[in-house]
Amino acid sequence: MDQFADRYPSRILPVPSIVDRTDPVVWGDGGSAGEPLDRDRIAFFERNGYLAFERLIPSEEIGRLTAELDVLWAAAGKSDDARVVREPDSDVVRSVFAIHESNATFRALLHDRRLAGMAEQILGSPVYIHQSRINYKTGFRGKEFYWHSDFETWHTEDGMPRMRAISISIALSDNHAVNGPLMLIPESHKHYVTCVGRTPDDHFKQSLRRQAVGTPDDASLRRLVAQGGIEAPTGPAGSIVLFDCNTMHGSNGNITPYPRSNIFAVYNSVENALVQPFGGTRPRPNFIASRAAGPIA
Amino acid sequence: MDQFADRYPSRILPVPSIVDRTDPVVWGDGGSAGEPLDRDRIAFFERNGYLAFERLIPSEEIGRLTAELDVLWAAAGKSDDARVVREPDSDVVRSVFAIHESNATFRALLHDRRLAGMAEQILGSPVYIHQSRINYKTGFRGKEFYWHSDFETWHTEDGMPRMRAISISIALSDNHAVNGPLMLIPESHKHYVTCVGRTPDDHFKQSLRRQAVGTPDDASLRRLVAQGGIEAPTGPAGSIVLFDCNTMHGSNGNITPYPRSNIFAVYNSVENALVQPFGGTRPRPNFIASRAAGPIA
Repeated sequence: MDQFADRYPSRILPVPSIVDRTDPVVWGDGGSAGEPLDRDRIAFFERNGYLAFERLIPSEEIGRLTAELDVLWAAAGKSDDARVVREPDSDVVRSVFAIHESNATFRALLHDRRLAGMAEQILGSPVYIHQSRINYKTGFRGKEFYWHSDFETWHTEDGMPRMRAISISIALSDNHAVNGPLMLIPESHKHYVTCVGRTPDDHFKQSLRRQAVGTPDDASLRRLVAQGGIEAPTGPAGSIVLFDCNTMHGSNGNITPYPRSNIFAVYNSVENALVQPFGGTRPRPNFIASRAAGPIA
Repeated sequence: MDQFADRYPSRILPVPSIVDRTDPVVWGDGGSAGEPLDRDRIAFFERNGYLAFERLIPSEEIGRLTAELDVLWAAAGKSDDARVVREPDSDVVRSVFAIHESNATFRALLHDRRLAGMAEQILGSPVYIHQSRINYKTGFRGKEFYWHSDFETWHTEDGMPRMRAISISIALSDNHAVNGPLMLIPESHKHYVTCVGRTPDDHFKQSLRRQAVGTPDDASLRRLVAQGGIEAPTGPAGSIVLFDCNTMHGSNGNITPYPRSNIFAVYNSVENALVQPFGGTRPRPNFIASRAAGPIA
């Protein structure tokens, strides 16, 4: 099957379905001595579709990153840049995209071997940054992110051919159980939940604020949760969660005073560069889905 | 000060404030041998404003209660009874009120010494049921309940003179960290946060679905959380949380497939019977705030 064949059709049939993943989870041989992840970690990732590390980024480094975040946030509040996405019901900033392009500090962090090295090991090739952003879930009125597989969107709307990308979420504030932490469904990465509904053109302008098309159905979610349960790794700022592009995830809203900011970056294999979107719509802008597939130096 | 004096004015001034509680938390002598709560429990309640008990109601009894719940729910779905309250954005049933009046099984449970006995011990007098309801937070699309002190509403809208009532929440489904469990702010019961905004007449018709007037301000919530933190007791069905009428509490939304149903009952001291609402509006209906203050037999 070539790169242009649709291995994972979605948003076509009028009823949802769950099909098996046809791609490996761990590409290549899973690593050798000197690579960042040991055999147990690799086996855990293969089985569950995610890995959590407490305090991977030391607190003094997090201090520098949050200072940078504050500057970025103040600027974003007044910006009409398309890379700044706001909450569905207000002008409060929800995400800032492409921070690896616009900000030297965040770029250096995302190119760092601690992070990019894990991605390369799992994906068995050099990688590039498909997408990066800072998410800011305010206290008191933080909205939920509904369940989704990132791959379903990236495949349909961006033309990512295969499941050969991983996401990393870096906590910039403490993740408690109560402030809407990232929730993952273990083992869900081995199943592909096709969604119902046609994608409108320029869907991203609305979907980044609140997703409507591309959400999985209740019955499929129940099946996945019955199989794998739900995990919500918590930990202090500097903790990270790494997960497969097809792992079903989401987060509840947050009425606590604790904000929840994180950096989110997607590493895609250079051998999995984007083609035309499989849903037939025009490609989304480069700041959401990079088409420059050159490897990280 | 007589029963008709307003010890806790709220919704009057244009700015919020935090004032000290002038009522005891534990009334009378806190109990003696043979009463349900020991000295340590009483001291914990006095200090923190709540108590949590895992699996207080045995699972076979919970089985009978949930069977009853299912029957009640099926009937409520088709009912136009005012005691059935629906979600703000849909017709999905959110709560059914006055279940101690309409249902013999739930009445027997709420009159049981295990529950009413704890209330009497803390409140130092016979008690009656001020309000009861079943809350049903559906999976996938369960909405949040924003932070509030029940007493602020009961005082302003129902005419409850003093802080001499306690609430009990009985979990009818397992409470996980991820399905929007009840969150409480320890120590908040010793402070009274006055709210801003005038109460419209018949406010309850809207406020039971989504609260607008009577919500505390961000700065006050930050102060309370900085002092006491946030606790979210979890546990299997049959676990209960008992809390003071003035303990600040709320819950996040719930996108997980796990529903979260609970029975909620308020025991008020017979010496604290309702008078005219301190906010000046007409009293709410009896199914929300009982004016029949006869003690539980």
